[in-house]
Amino acid sequence: MTEKDSGNTSIPVGNPAAHAPGMPVVAVIGDGQLARMMQTAAIELGQSLRILAGAKDSSAAQVAADVVLGDYTNIDDLHRAVAGADVMTFDHEHVPTEHLRQLIAEGVNVQPGPDALVNAQDKLVMRKRLRELGAPVPPFLAIENVADAEGFFDAVDGQVCLKARRGGYDGKGVWFPETKDELAQLVEKLLGAGTALMAEKKVALVRELSAMVARTPSGVTQAWPVVESVQRNGVCAEAVAPAPNLSAELQDTTRALAQRIASELGVTGVLAVELFETLDVNGQPEIFVNELAMRPHNTGHWTQDGCVTSQFEQHLRAILDYPLGSTETLAPVTVMANVLGADTDPEQPMAERMLEVWRRYPQAKIHLYGKGHRPGRKIGHVNMVGEDAAQVRAAALASAHYLVHASWD
Amino acid sequence: MTEKDSGNTSIPVGNPAAHAPGMPVVAVIGDGQLARMMQTAAIELGQSLRILAGAKDSSAAQVAADVVLGDYTNIDDLHRAVAGADVMTFDHEHVPTEHLRQLIAEGVNVQPGPDALVNAQDKLVMRKRLRELGAPVPPFLAIENVADAEGFFDAVDGQVCLKARRGGYDGKGVWFPETKDELAQLVEKLLGAGTALMAEKKVALVRELSAMVARTPSGVTQAWPVVESVQRNGVCAEAVAPAPNLSAELQDTTRALAQRIASELGVTGVLAVELFETLDVNGQPEIFVNELAMRPHNTGHWTQDGCVTSQFEQHLRAILDYPLGSTETLAPVTVMANVLGADTDPEQPMAERMLEVWRRYPQAKIHLYGKGHRPGRKIGHVNMVGEDAAQVRAAALASAHYLVHASWD
Repeated sequence: MTEKDSGNTSIPVGNPAAHAPGMPVVAVIGDGQLARMMQTAAIELGQSLRILAGAKDSSAAQVAADVVLGDYTNIDDLHRAVAGADVMTFDHEHVPTEHLRQLIAEGVNVQPGPDALVNAQDKLVMRKRLRELGAPVPPFLAIENVADAEGFFDAVDGQVCLKARRGGYDGKGVWFPETKDELAQLVEKLLGAGTALMAEKKVALVRELSAMVARTPSGVTQAWPVVESVQRNGVCAEAVAPAPNLSAELQDTTRALAQRIASELGVTGVLAVELFETLDVNGQPEIFVNELAMRPHNTGHWTQDGCVTSQFEQHLRAILDYPLGSTETLAPVTVMANVLGADTDPEQPMAERMLEVWRRYPQAKIHLYGKGHRPGRKIGHVNMVGEDAAQVRAAALASAHYLVHASWD
Repeated sequence: MTEKDSGNTSIPVGNPAAHAPGMPVVAVIGDGQLARMMQTAAIELGQSLRILAGAKDSSAAQVAADVVLGDYTNIDDLHRAVAGADVMTFDHEHVPTEHLRQLIAEGVNVQPGPDALVNAQDKLVMRKRLRELGAPVPPFLAIENVADAEGFFDAVDGQVCLKARRGGYDGKGVWFPETKDELAQLVEKLLGAGTALMAEKKVALVRELSAMVARTPSGVTQAWPVVESVQRNGVCAEAVAPAPNLSAELQDTTRALAQRIASELGVTGVLAVELFETLDVNGQPEIFVNELAMRPHNTGHWTQDGCVTSQFEQHLRAILDYPLGSTETLAPVTVMANVLGADTDPEQPMAERMLEVWRRYPQAKIHLYGKGHRPGRKIGHVNMVGEDAAQVRAAALASAHYLVHASWD
C-alpha cells in the first residue's frame, strides 16, 4: 500500500506505521502552516497525513510522522507523495496542471481537481468563468499589449488595478498605476518579462468580506458565516466573524453565491471567496468577487476556536467525500488576528512573548506555525472568542501586536 | 541540544528538525491517546513533542516526528527520551519512582515530580495524605494480613471495597467481597501473590463526579467546571459538563478541594480528582475523594470541544510554567461519550461508521486514537456541545454506540 514504482526502481515510500489500519491516507502537497493545521485536525479524526515537504524542518514536516521530501513541480516526487494514498490535496495552488492531469489519468484521486483549481491559479480564467455564471465581478480585460491597457484605462476613468494572472498572493502581483503613462510603462515591462496580465476596475471599497464554503465530490456544500477581513499592506491582518453589520439578506446572498461558485466550478474541499463590499448607485451595499482560494484560507482560521467544525477538519472531510460537519458558531463573536513578522525581531524570545500575552488575556488562543522570523511573514495567529466585537477585536489585535513587537503600544 | 551521553556511547537522539527554534521541547513518556492528544495541542502552540514510545505504530508515535523507541522502565531509554528536552511529562503513572529521582538528581525537569506522583501511584499513600489534609475520604485501612481485613469488615458492617495499592485502573484491581470468608480468601490469595492491599468502606453512591484542575510549578492553579462521570463496568463511559443539578455551593467546594489537593501535594500539570457523591445523614449531598490522576484524564476530554482551553493544552502550559488558559465553557452543556471496543468488531469499517454518525449528527466531534479493536479498549470518544443536557447526552451516547456496534439500537 505504501510502495509504488517510482521511475525505474521500486522504492518504499512513506511511513506505514504512521497510519492506523483502515483509516484513509491523505497526501498533502505543501509543507506550510495550512498543511500543519490540517495535521492537527487529521490526528483527532484518527488519521495522520503524508506530507510532501521541501524540508524536514518545514512547518508541517515538524509535526508529521510520514514526510516525503521532494519538489511539488517534479512528477517523480509527486508520485512518491501519493503512492498508496487515498486522496491527494494541497496547501497551495502551485502544482503544475499537466502533472495533475497525468496523475488523474494514472488513477490518483486529486481533490480539488485541475479544472476547478485553474480558477484559483489564473485570475483571468476565474474572472471569465465567474462572469459567465453571472457572479458579480468588477469590469476586467485581458491585457496583451499596451493598447489594451490604455483602452481599459479610459474605459474605467483611470480606476485601474493591474494584476499578474498567475502567482500573485498577499498583495504581490497587484499594481495600482495612477496615470496612463505609468500603466503603459508597467505593462510593457511586465509583458516583456513574460508576466501574463489582466486589468480590472478598482472598486471603491467599503470593506473586504470572505465567504467560505466546503464542497464534497458528491456535491454537498456547507457554508460558514461570512466574515469581514481586514487587509494591511495587501496582507490579511484580521478576520471578524460574523462580519459586523452585514444585513441578513446580504449574508444569505453571499453564502449562496459562494456555494454556487463551489458547485459550478466543481470545487472540492474548502473554497474561500474573497469579496469587496462597495456601495451601489443607490448607496446600498453591494459585493464583487475578488479572489478564490481552493484550500483552507487565512480568513477561515477563526473556525478553529469559534466553530463546531474548523476549516481544516472540514477540508479533510470534504475531499474524502465524508458528510460535512456543523458550521455553528461557539460564540457571538470570534476575531482572528495574524501574527506577521515585524521589520526587526525583538530580543524577547517568542516563547516569552506568548506568556506576556496570556498573562493579560488568558482567553487568547495562540497558534504558531513553527516558522522563523522574517519581516511580513505569517508566523502565527491569535483567535479570541467573546460577546462584544469591539472588545474582542481590541484584545486579539493587541495580542498579535505583542507577539511581533514585544510591546503593547 | 538533542544529543546526550546515553550509557557509554554518545548517540544522537530525537529529531532536531521536528522542533521550531526557540520553542520548548516536551518529552512525553508514554505513547497512548493522551500523548497523542497532547501532540495536537502542542502543534498549535508552535511545538512538537518528543514521544517515548513502545512501538512506531502506537497511538502517539503515529502522529509525531520525534519518536524515541524504548521502555519507560529502562533508565537508558528514559535518558534518550529526555536528552535535550526542556521538560519531561507523562501519559501514565508507571515510570518507576527511583528512575524519576535519578533523573531529577541529574538535572532533568520532571513534571509532575515523584513526590506528587506517588499519590497517583499508591492508593494507600494517597488516602493517608488526603486524610492528613482533612480532605473527605471514606474510612480505610492498610491490609497486611487476613486479620486486618476481618477487623475492617466488622468495622464497616461488611461494606468493604478491597483495592490493590498500585497498578489498578479502569475497574482492575478493585474487588467487592460480599462475605467475610470471601474477603479472607481474596486477601490471602492476593497477598500471597505479592499484591499490596488496602480496604475502604464502600460508599452508597449517588453518582460520580470529577474535578479537574491544572497547577504550575509556580503554584498557580486553574479549575474547570466539575463534571458528572458515568462508569460502566468500572470504566468511564461518559462525562457531562457541567455536572447537572450540582449546587453552586458544592461546585465551589469541590473545585476548591481539587485546587487545595493540587497545591498540598505539589502536583504540576493536570490533576483529576475523581469523587463519589453520596448523601449525608441529613440526606444532603456529600462528596468523597475516590482516585487521583496526574495527567490529562478521560473525564476531561470534553474540554477539547467545550472549553476555551483544553486539558491537553493546559497540561503543556502548566508543566512549562506558562500562564494558564481560560477554562470558560463554550456551550451550556458538553457531553463526552467513550468509544469502547465491543465484544466483537462489526464488519462495517470504522471509517464508514464515522460517516453514519455524521449523517445523523453533523455536530458530533469524533476523536479517534489510531488504535485497533479489542473488547473494552478505549479507541476514541465523541464530544457534543449544545443547550439541552438530555438531548446532547442522547446524541453523544448514540454516536459512540454506533461507532462500536455499527447499529443505532
